[in-house]
Amino acid sequence: MKKKPSAVETRAKRIKLLLMDCDGVMTDGRIMLLENGDEQKTFNVRDGHGIVLLHRAGLKTGIISGRASTATVRRARDLGISLVLQNSLDKIKDFEELLASEQISESEVAFVGDDITDIPLMQRAELAVAVAGAGQGNLNAAPYVTEGRGGHRAGPEEAERILETQGRLGELIGRHT
Amino acid sequence: MKKKPSAVETRAKRIKLLLMDCDGVMTDGRIMLLENGDEQKTFNVRDGHGIVLLHRAGLKTGIISGRASTATVRRARDLGISLVLQNSLDKIKDFEELLASEQISESEVAFVGDDITDIPLMQRAELAVAVAGAGQGNLNAAPYVTEGRGGHRAGPEEAERILETQGRLGELIGRHT
Amino acid sequence: MKKKPSAVETRAKRIKLLLMDCDGVMTDGRIMLLENGDEQKTFNVRDGHGIVLLHRAGLKTGIISGRASTATVRRARDLGISLVLQNSLDKIKDFEELLASEQISESEVAFVGDDITDIPLMQRAELAVAVAGAGQGNLNAAPYVTEGRGGHRAGPEEAERILETQGRLGELIGRHT
Amino acid sequence: MKKKPSAVETRAKRIKLLLMDCDGVMTDGRIMLLENGDEQKTFNVRDGHGIVLLHRAGLKTGIISGRASTATVRRARDLGISLVLQNSLDKIKDFEELLASEQISESEVAFVGDDITDIPLMQRAELAVAVAGAGQGNLNAAPYVTEGRGGHRAGPEEAERILETQGRLGELIGRHT
Repeated sequence: MKKKPSAVETRAKRIKLLLMDCDGVMTDGRIMLLENGDEQKTFNVRDGHGIVLLHRAGLKTGIISGRASTATVRRARDLGISLVLQNSLDKIKDFEELLASEQISESEVAFVGDDITDIPLMQRAELAVAVAGAGQGNLNAAPYVTEGRGGHRAGPEEAERILETQGRLGELIGRHT
Repeated sequence: MKKKPSAVETRAKRIKLLLMDCDGVMTDGRIMLLENGDEQKTFNVRDGHGIVLLHRAGLKTGIISGRASTATVRRARDLGISLVLQNSLDKIKDFEELLASEQISESEVAFVGDDITDIPLMQRAELAVAVAGAGQGNLNAAPYVTEGRGGHRAGPEEAERILETQGRLGELIGRHT
Repeated sequence: MKKKPSAVETRAKRIKLLLMDCDGVMTDGRIMLLENGDEQKTFNVRDGHGIVLLHRAGLKTGIISGRASTATVRRARDLGISLVLQNSLDKIKDFEELLASEQISESEVAFVGDDITDIPLMQRAELAVAVAGAGQGNLNAAPYVTEGRGGHRAGPEEAERILETQGRLGELIGRHT
Repeated sequence: MKKKPSAVETRAKRIKLLLMDCDGVMTDGRIMLLENGDEQKTFNVRDGHGIVLLHRAGLKTGIISGRASTATVRRARDLGISLVLQNSLDKIKDFEELLASEQISESEVAFVGDDITDIPLMQRAELAVAVAGAGQGNLNAAPYVTEGRGGHRAGPEEAERILETQGRLGELIGRHT
């Protein structure tokens, strides 16, 4: 943790839903295009373990992305991420509708972002998290910056932090091993 | 900015068209080949945001590449890059024809390059930009070198610099968020 | 070698089977997903040479992975890795069954792991090896940490170490060249 | 150049054929496997320019690889590399047959390698070159080590060095631009 530790800890304890941007957060931001029009994204196996720990602790997870990709849908399904909003042209509107349908308040949401389009959501969520290497606007908007970059341990680091703050990490890792 | 700041700023204010090489500038220069003959290129989601900002400010963007790839065409279409010249065996000739058909003069063009085949265009364009890690000849020919390497924030960095110099960045980011 | 050299050397001499996790050990941990549902893994050519040296020395090799992927099966076949257990939900159970069917005891097994799901096997195997960049729990559980990260010389480094300890490396490289 | 400069320069002047290993020299050594069995290799656009300069200077180029891949064939065809030997189980035998059929002597061949299977050829060729990050045996066998790693400017660097030593680089770059 790099800034305002006590405020962050207080906020992390309230979190019931971890929302993330996809490209640059769950991936390293690279878009690989094949000549047949296929698009490839690069996720990280170990990032998935953090998501699994969150689900085991009863938290929900979701993705709000400005792009649409079946690779994202597939990765979300693999990890049990139930809320996936793609092709989001108005992230604030989609965020509000998602919270309404899930009956979760803004004060219970953490949002992890890396680029300019994520800033509005980072300003709304209870706990704003920027990944290492995020844009300057995102770093300014986030009380917490992960040590890992997108697609390189940003996810599990954030998940472990939330669970640690909630005092449930030891119990879950014990069950895991 | 690393060299001759004031001259670069004066030049950046005139720019109406940002032209780029593709491999090594919009991508990291890697060519991934599959056994079925398919070729894959690696772009970066965040680089696209800089291109979008330029379009919003009314500037045009284009690609001049010595290779031909449908991946490049697809990425250009995604980002709204309207001018795409591939398979360019004589980049100077293609450059001149492009400017004539678009009614844009050399004094209104920035060109971003990384390798030996880009040097002639860098010598012709009003504002020559080399990406970090470019060949020595390109670094010599460019008054401006991006901090990011090709496919890693070279694009948005250049776009933001042009818009900043033109005094329009703050207004555009405001509209964006 | 980073910790407890003499104990590690004693253990390495007994090894008849090198077991590995796949993602993060034989690969760099990245999962690349295509839109058609295809999954791609990234191995390293040079890592394969270490495996080949082990086989030439008469040792067996195997993979225990929590995921299932035909890419893993193909890579194992290319390298002559005969024991491949995928989709392993209970790694300890699969480990015990594998040893029983191969008539190998735990005191003859080295296990290379990188993440939380590998810790139980690292605690059981005679020689626990963590790759550089592994999770903290893995680093704690391993008397030996490779200098290379998963997919970047972790494999051959480990293989060469085992063979060196067994005094057979020089003879094998001689035969190789 | 890192070692024995004068001897290397003398040798480089005689070179008529540049032979290379593929994986780890023309590529970064990664083998990406898809579930459909397709294998992908990663080349670098800029490395190709060095090969093109060699051909323009009248030198020949070739690949000797222990693996077989249509991606290698395609990349070789793109760059005009005329001699491609894949699936080479006995590199020395293939090397000798290649030289006989091309009527080139060992004293006119440079060989670039990175791993243990390349050492015998590095010991036979007039000019042995190891890429940065090569195995220790290769570094020991090579009077010249490239600054770039495989797939990252190892190729053009070597090509430019040979041409520089032969006093033809300036003339060729002039023609190129």
